[in-house]
Amino acid sequence: MMKKGRFIVVEGGEGAGKSTMAAEIVDYLREKGVKDEDIVRTREPGGTPIAEDIRTILKDIRKDDILCSEAELLLMYAARAQLVKTVIMPALEAGKYVVGDRHDLSTLAYQGGGRGIPRELIGSIRNAVLGDFYPDLTILMDIPPEKGLVRAGKRGDLDRFEQEDRDFFERVRKVFLDECEKHPDRMALVRADRDFAEVRADIRAILESKCIAG
Amino acid sequence: MMKKGRFIVVEGGEGAGKSTMAAEIVDYLREKGVKDEDIVRTREPGGTPIAEDIRTILKDIRKDDILCSEAELLLMYAARAQLVKTVIMPALEAGKYVVGDRHDLSTLAYQGGGRGIPRELIGSIRNAVLGDFYPDLTILMDIPPEKGLVRAGKRGDLDRFEQEDRDFFERVRKVFLDECEKHPDRMALVRADRDFAEVRADIRAILESKCIAG
Repeated sequence: MMKKGRFIVVEGGEGAGKSTMAAEIVDYLREKGVKDEDIVRTREPGGTPIAEDIRTILKDIRKDDILCSEAELLLMYAARAQLVKTVIMPALEAGKYVVGDRHDLSTLAYQGGGRGIPRELIGSIRNAVLGDFYPDLTILMDIPPEKGLVRAGKRGDLDRFEQEDRDFFERVRKVFLDECEKHPDRMALVRADRDFAEVRADIRAILESKCIAG
Repeated sequence: MMKKGRFIVVEGGEGAGKSTMAAEIVDYLREKGVKDEDIVRTREPGGTPIAEDIRTILKDIRKDDILCSEAELLLMYAARAQLVKTVIMPALEAGKYVVGDRHDLSTLAYQGGGRGIPRELIGSIRNAVLGDFYPDLTILMDIPPEKGLVRAGKRGDLDRFEQEDRDFFERVRKVFLDECEKHPDRMALVRADRDFAEVRADIRAILESKCIAG
């Protein structure tokens, strides 16, 4: 066991299978001997009672008021600040493993790539709130939007993000892929449009090679 | 009537009588011949359906999750971004008068002075969201915290801010007063711990001198 905890994030577009693979990472850690009480799962936006209230505002489609891009961005960081400060940081300081379904990169992809908010503006808010805090490992589950959206659609009604158009998701995907290429030290790409067993095997190989639970 | 609208904000601590005086400003504008449909009243945090949902998160005292300072700051700006973009800016562009109960200065006072968040951090988020947008006139209703809190207490249960300690409100007041001294061009001080008629007369004199509805 490592003394310091590790923060492993699963990122990617709609229907990529992030939450399924986050559960697989938890299984992997257990097999490696990590105790249940040393594994914390999070999802973003959300993961604390207040952050889940913020998530509701972010996801709801309402007709009486259309959320502007800047407010959306700030709500994302408000939820993230609350989660990082009250859940993730304390867990990591206690030497635990945190497995996150989405984190900071999603904001760069959705609010930056998708909505077109300048990268510098996102960066200035990011740095003000998170400073030099980054996940130890981010696994990008990449899937072509047309395939992912079909999968996501099967889950029921579409939320405020899922009902965006095809171009939006292509821009989101591009940011994800570009960032993954830029940061091979702390990111890894997995092609998610394959059989469950293949995706799972890739993720296990990544966790092994990064000595996540060594 | 001016072609461009005006944004007049009433600021100050708890129990200073801000909403009462905002109503007086509306009366003054009506007397000057401004039509009802050209006067928009706002309050912050809040003022749009989404911003009011954010207000609820900000004001509620909850035991399952304590809102961290950074999340509080970002929620304030999320609500403000939504209000400015969807209500205040369109009204001003249509040549209307907007009378606000609190605005940006409260964040510098409460989250900066009260919570101790560095001014630079608040400034970087402020600039990212609001740029060079400022009220045309901010009237600071100044009242010693011990008097204001007694007045506020009479309204019923205290919210998450009202239950802070005395020092907190002294720090808030100091920022309000310092800013007022720094910006005599767009701010004016009113001593709020006096009779209603005296406070009202001062506010009318300020509106006249600033040619708000000239």
